[in-house]
Amino acid sequence: MKPLFFFFLVMTFTSAYSQENDSISNVIINIEKSALERWNKGDPSGFLEISAKDVVYFDPFTERRLDGLDKLTELYKSIRRQIKVERYEMINPYVQAVKNMAVLTYNLVSFTGDSIHKWNCTEVYRIDHKKWKIIQTHWSLTKPGI
Amino acid sequence: MKPLFFFFLVMTFTSAYSQENDSISNVIINIEKSALERWNKGDPSGFLEISAKDVVYFDPFTERRLDGLDKLTELYKSIRRQIKVERYEMINPYVQAVKNMAVLTYNLVSFTGDSIHKWNCTEVYRIDHKKWKIIQTHWSLTKPGI
Repeated sequence: MKPLFFFFLVMTFTSAYSQENDSISNVIINIEKSALERWNKGDPSGFLEISAKDVVYFDPFTERRLDGLDKLTELYKSIRRQIKVERYEMINPYVQAVKNMAVLTYNLVSFTGDSIHKWNCTEVYRIDHKKWKIIQTHWSLTKPGI
Repeated sequence: MKPLFFFFLVMTFTSAYSQENDSISNVIINIEKSALERWNKGDPSGFLEISAKDVVYFDPFTERRLDGLDKLTELYKSIRRQIKVERYEMINPYVQAVKNMAVLTYNLVSFTGDSIHKWNCTEVYRIDHKKWKIIQTHWSLTKPGI
């Protein structure tokens, strides 16, 4: 193989790989933002619709990890229409991906009136029936002050 | 294809798939436990050795997600020999895996003298150069009481 041809082959491959990763990243961040914007209006169904059957879940208010979409649906049912976030900042969203799985992490700041809440968030997505679905959610408070 | 043959083919495939998943699960839980046991003796290097260059990290004491092995190494350097955990319980460790990526979640209880600390933990592992490496760590306090 001629060196120049090899160079272009490698460059094409690298660029295709990086484009694929960029595209996964954009897709996932957009999915997350759509769900988050519904959440901020008191509608947790956005997250339920993009969560897989085997989703697992942590937040600062549960004593144990929640296992499965049924349990998460139950939890979210109890807080429907109780959340109101006026404005949010998704800080440094970052996606690390392989072909069928990806992890999205970001810091989140939520503003409502004078109150500000800061969060750490990890979402793991997996391709299920050709769609990205959340299989793991971990919400925690940034520096909860303990 | 005869139905019975098809049945055995599906069963063999399903069983192979489930065995592969069980084996990934065992491998990852063992890797995590080894690092955790070193951590409990004040040695964070166990976790550093199994973290990838692009690891990202949340804990309850950092204002923002930490990005990269260098930053994590710096943080862990500052707490070397300061942690002493006498006994721990890894509760319900659970691994969700595809071929090259897996997420391990568990609740952790750490005991030192009379004090008990409860944690939520998410680790995302990815195959790097044929070895499972952590690319995302999220530690948070279970019900931090806010």
